[in-house]
Amino acid sequence: WQVVEDDGELHLQRIYRFRNFTNALSFTLFVGAIAEEAGHHPVLLTEWGKVTVTWWTHAIGGLHQNDFIMAAKTDFIALN
Amino acid sequence: WQVVEDDGELHLQRIYRFRNFTNALSFTLFVGAIAEEAGHHPVLLTEWGKVTVTWWTHAIGGLHQNDFIMAAKTDFIALN
Repeated sequence: WQVVEDDGELHLQRIYRFRNFTNALSFTLFVGAIAEEAGHHPVLLTEWGKVTVTWWTHAIGGLHQNDFIMAAKTDFIALN
Repeated sequence: WQVVEDDGELHLQRIYRFRNFTNALSFTLFVGAIAEEAGHHPVLLTEWGKVTVTWWTHAIGGLHQNDFIMAAKTDFIALN
């Protein structure tokens, strides 16, 4: 994960690579599902063979402990 | 749809709005499904209540008739 700055806000961002579009889309769907369950939503950029996941907490305009927890959960999905 | 320029390439781009994250994610999934069926893949940016769809033809570094067909199919999904 990288901490990136966007418009003065800190975001957690990671790129995951896949061997095709369908695998990337499935990953997006799984990450979306845990996001909805947690009530905390990332930005998901889905491309052929690649998904870029960005977590941050809109309400505080930056990073909260929840973002790091969601990042760890996202990694767990990627491993499984 | 807007024709946008990214790194000297022309892309077709449209933002679709939804009332929550789940509806945005479902739309992403449907667009992904028609993309996979057509063998032509967009970039899908999924956010809370919003999906930005971008079509272009990587092989020619710009827009091809297929992109306009896929854009029309994307609109059809959004209407249904």
